[in-house]
Amino acid sequence: MSKFDPVDHSHRRRNPLTNDWVLVSPHRAKRPWQGQVEKPQQNDSAAHDPSCYLCAGNTRINGEVNPEYQGTFVFTNDFAALMNDTPASEQENDDLFTVEAARGTSRVICFSPAHNKSLPELSLPALENVVQTWRDQVAELSKDYAWVQVFENKGAAMGCSNPHPHGQVWANDFIPNEVRKADVNQRAYFDKHGSSLLLDYAQKESASGERTVVETDHWIAVVPYWAAWPFETLLMPKFNCARFDEMNDAQQADLAVALKKLTSRYDNLFQCSFPYSMGWHGAPHNSDVTEHWQLHAHFYPPLLRSATVRKFMVGYEMMAEPQRDLTPEQAAQKLQALSDVHYNESNG
Amino acid sequence: MSKFDPVDHSHRRRNPLTNDWVLVSPHRAKRPWQGQVEKPQQNDSAAHDPSCYLCAGNTRINGEVNPEYQGTFVFTNDFAALMNDTPASEQENDDLFTVEAARGTSRVICFSPAHNKSLPELSLPALENVVQTWRDQVAELSKDYAWVQVFENKGAAMGCSNPHPHGQVWANDFIPNEVRKADVNQRAYFDKHGSSLLLDYAQKESASGERTVVETDHWIAVVPYWAAWPFETLLMPKFNCARFDEMNDAQQADLAVALKKLTSRYDNLFQCSFPYSMGWHGAPHNSDVTEHWQLHAHFYPPLLRSATVRKFMVGYEMMAEPQRDLTPEQAAQKLQALSDVHYNESNG
Ligand SMILES: O=P(O)(O)O[C@H]1O[C@H](CO)[C@@H](O)[C@H](O)[C@H]1O
Ligand SMILES: O=P(O)(O)O[C@H]1O[C@H](CO)[C@@H](O)[C@H](O)[C@H]1O
Repeated sequence: MSKFDPVDHSHRRRNPLTNDWVLVSPHRAKRPWQGQVEKPQQNDSAAHDPSCYLCAGNTRINGEVNPEYQGTFVFTNDFAALMNDTPASEQENDDLFTVEAARGTSRVICFSPAHNKSLPELSLPALENVVQTWRDQVAELSKDYAWVQVFENKGAAMGCSNPHPHGQVWANDFIPNEVRKADVNQRAYFDKHGSSLLLDYAQKESASGERTVVETDHWIAVVPYWAAWPFETLLMPKFNCARFDEMNDAQQADLAVALKKLTSRYDNLFQCSFPYSMGWHGAPHNSDVTEHWQLHAHFYPPLLRSATVRKFMVGYEMMAEPQRDLTPEQAAQKLQALSDVHYNESNG
Repeated sequence: MSKFDPVDHSHRRRNPLTNDWVLVSPHRAKRPWQGQVEKPQQNDSAAHDPSCYLCAGNTRINGEVNPEYQGTFVFTNDFAALMNDTPASEQENDDLFTVEAARGTSRVICFSPAHNKSLPELSLPALENVVQTWRDQVAELSKDYAWVQVFENKGAAMGCSNPHPHGQVWANDFIPNEVRKADVNQRAYFDKHGSSLLLDYAQKESASGERTVVETDHWIAVVPYWAAWPFETLLMPKFNCARFDEMNDAQQADLAVALKKLTSRYDNLFQCSFPYSMGWHGAPHNSDVTEHWQLHAHFYPPLLRSATVRKFMVGYEMMAEPQRDLTPEQAAQKLQALSDVHYNESNG
């Protein structure tokens, strides 16, 4: 029997943030693909689209007129998943039927007036503006809510229903599943080691470089050792930082640099507007104990082989556990080999 | 403030099999959809396709020739995610980098020679044959493996890359995440109540009928109280049954009836070949303690509003928790209102 080699042999890796496992089957990347193909995604070409609900000066579905905004523009979602006036449930819960009322709000963040510029194509000052908006939104909403989820769905393949580059913020009066798991597992690590899981991890990845996709003065993005999506990345501070409001000016400006480089590499991989869902996890505001927490962003992009062939997380993945077709190290190598200048900017 | 009403007010429900929650936002079904549309799926029309790798008598990618099979046909996946000869990992694990070798095998189950007949369109004897094949595969593979995952990805929207109706069996020398959770949570319930979680649940749903989609002599399929996907169902025995090999003949034949009715209602909902991932969870064979287990199948169908508009489990769902746009009771009502005879059979 040959010696175990993660590039040749199927194996499982544990995700220390969730305590779940991922199955890595490197040799499966060779199978032919005869299934669904996606439309390759490019940004719309016009900087302003008169029929877009999100462009400056246009009228939304509910009749409201967007201001002539210059930077970011935030408004409450016209079809919010949460309201702040939900009455409490009076059902008597048992171990089979358990319900609780959910309160919150949902907002849309237009990243800039430019209908045709997603994050990597924004100027650094415009990206700094996006980061500041995330920070402001979390600060404002966490006065009223236990959890504030900042996220972006980019591309039709990731359920985005409007091509104008935008993200969302959903605030909750509860701690959602994924945040609860990140909290429990970071806490257990801190209790055991006396140091923060993700700061220890960022330092180990920075020292090795094997899975690093972007590293700036204060931030590092890696294909995590336990990545489930083919080109998944984890963006982390290299300094102690539980929440957005703990960044100093230099660290915050440097986050815009890291975001620009990371999302440019993504677009460069298959020369398309690279779809993904991304979102931020920081210490929830329902507790003052934050020493175990590090702020971080997950990027979950679906594409696997090209601008048109994605990974499906279906049958086995839904019933058993996530399965990937190339190793995280192989994915990191592909992203490392690219320029961190966006293909539209390097030609222009 | 009005009284809490689950049809009007956002709320969370707890899934007792995973201990995770789902956010229910009933009023969001009203929002307009301008995002990705799927190809409405119909079965291919020919009973035999000369270019299909799965049809009887045809040659597969690896050069093997399929037999002239009459019932089901099982073969080892030409691009298996797992091998049975993987050597053990020698890496020294720590709390950040944890790996283990994974052994197993993957097989394909062609449901019948008919290239154009998915489960609801098979005759009852042909469906009984499928159930018997699942049972045989689990019996055979569980001699060597701790876990045997039987599943089907149906439709291009669920990553199925060959339209010939087929399912898969992946065997593992480990207990995957989702199975571990189902085991832990069923065990905790049994320890507390002295009865089985899913048998208690099946009895309560049978008595209420509110979420029942199909009920036969021995089986019941409901939109579970904690469903995440719009038309998700849970198919359960109404008798004590931890594994396939505990069914008697009548119970096993009746499962074919329940499957035919359930999948016919699915196809009838939007008059299309309704995509889904489905899979079976029974007591793992690495333990003799099975009293807490009930065999059950999950059906996770992505469609939301029509044959072309699906639910995307993306940003908020990935970062926070699953969110649904109609209540499980509303979904059950829509499925209840349909015939359980397939639209192709009722016209023919
Ligand atoms: O094995 P198939 O049908 O080629 O592939 C399909 O099912 C697998 C198991 O759920 C998934 O890992 C793949 O992403 C999906 O495309
Ligand atoms: O809010 P949107 O962009 O209309 O909708 C999108 O993002 C939401 C939050 O992740 C999801 O629940 C929807 O399924 C998706 O289509």
